[in-house]
Amino acid sequence: MFIDCKSIAKSIDEETIALTRLTKPKLVSLAVNPDEGTISYLKSQQKKAKSLNVEHEIFVLDNVEILSEKLLEFSKDETVHGIFVAHPLPKGADELQVASLIDPEKDVEGRNPVNLGRLMYGEEGFAPCTAAAIVEILTRTTQLMGKNVVIVGRSNTVGLPLSVMLLRRDRSATVTVCHTKTQNLEEKTLQADIVVVAVGHAGFLKPEMVRENALVIDVGINVVGDRVVGDVDPEVEKKCSLTPVPGGVGVVTTAILMNRVARIASRGGKV
Amino acid sequence: MFIDCKSIAKSIDEETIALTRLTKPKLVSLAVNPDEGTISYLKSQQKKAKSLNVEHEIFVLDNVEILSEKLLEFSKDETVHGIFVAHPLPKGADELQVASLIDPEKDVEGRNPVNLGRLMYGEEGFAPCTAAAIVEILTRTTQLMGKNVVIVGRSNTVGLPLSVMLLRRDRSATVTVCHTKTQNLEEKTLQADIVVVAVGHAGFLKPEMVRENALVIDVGINVVGDRVVGDVDPEVEKKCSLTPVPGGVGVVTTAILMNRVARIASRGGKV
Repeated sequence: MFIDCKSIAKSIDEETIALTRLTKPKLVSLAVNPDEGTISYLKSQQKKAKSLNVEHEIFVLDNVEILSEKLLEFSKDETVHGIFVAHPLPKGADELQVASLIDPEKDVEGRNPVNLGRLMYGEEGFAPCTAAAIVEILTRTTQLMGKNVVIVGRSNTVGLPLSVMLLRRDRSATVTVCHTKTQNLEEKTLQADIVVVAVGHAGFLKPEMVRENALVIDVGINVVGDRVVGDVDPEVEKKCSLTPVPGGVGVVTTAILMNRVARIASRGGKV
Repeated sequence: MFIDCKSIAKSIDEETIALTRLTKPKLVSLAVNPDEGTISYLKSQQKKAKSLNVEHEIFVLDNVEILSEKLLEFSKDETVHGIFVAHPLPKGADELQVASLIDPEKDVEGRNPVNLGRLMYGEEGFAPCTAAAIVEILTRTTQLMGKNVVIVGRSNTVGLPLSVMLLRRDRSATVTVCHTKTQNLEEKTLQADIVVVAVGHAGFLKPEMVRENALVIDVGINVVGDRVVGDVDPEVEKKCSLTPVPGGVGVVTTAILMNRVARIASRGGKV
């Protein structure tokens, strides 16, 4: 069974639209030497922003020095409520240094270390958007208390922050984080009530790796030929509840991003 | 078998003493309405500081407002290199707000959210001291790559930061975080190569909960009558490698704390 993520996104969008009736939120998106895929992503972001009455401006920049200047500028600019930086940054760029330049109260993607650290205090207003989207999908779909969750992938945008968020007392899942060095991965995923896959390999999670009726969250976005596919073999859907790709975690992530921009604008800087 | 943590602490102390020959490091420790146990802890901290040529001053304060003022003052004071706040804070105090007042570059305990967030970027210069001590003990005792680690406890001083640190690529353990809501805890600890227990219950981990030759880290400090005991039943030592209590994680934690103060003083603010 596929989980209906579009209706989750829709309900978030409705709140966003209600907020943007009262205020003029603005998001800026910055990219350094973006490839075609990134530009196409930013354009779809812009379309989404427009549909929600969020003002949106894209800045295509030549190098990380200019990016750094722009981040400081927009952090101070009171007409800008949210700042988004396209990733990956050019090779050799210091991700931590760049993320630290974004005003934490405009860091709608949740990359500034202060926002990652706040997660360990239970503060999730600026949690990484994808992790926040997964929490939103899970809490709307199931009870998390005491469930065994296996997360495959340990990035600082998904696996690491998500593990901290699922351990928060009001959720209290038991969380295992796996990755390329994990031994007997299948043994672990087979024990899980919930499996989250964020590895960037098309069809990575096979049906025989999950138990009947598990809940599976597919975070992958892989381009195979002219199709976009996830990290989970579509056959998994026959025995589990699965988020689709496209139209799954991604649409909820974008909805949350826009919702944050609107909230920041309407609350004068606080999510 | 008990793991010899004192010799690990000693080798860290030797580096500290070498550093304090060249500089005048100073640590301040602040406590709001401390109980007897806290005062006795601060005094033992002071004794340790003295033995390493680290200047140390204790401030006993009346309330969190004064604490906040002092934290701002010492954050600016160039003669102070490390700031320690005794915990728990008085009931109702905002832990996150207080921690955020400590200059991240003097936050020797690793409580400021920016230092917790930096862990997700692999930056551990100001990792929570207890988590850093456990990593130190583990990396000196075993290979972590691909090992199954079960952490019991999800505090933001031990369980959460430690899980992120053990997942770092140069360590690459597979990490499960368990807690009071975990179902069938014994099933999980029995599968672990390494078990870390930080729950604050004397003798919580029983021998039948761990497998032969596992490595067990006891983070507990519980006062039972006139004795200090850990979270692990001492019988576990007969089948596993175990850190003792007292004289285990605690002594390494203090050694790391003092070492950081010395490093900050000698490097002009950077650990």
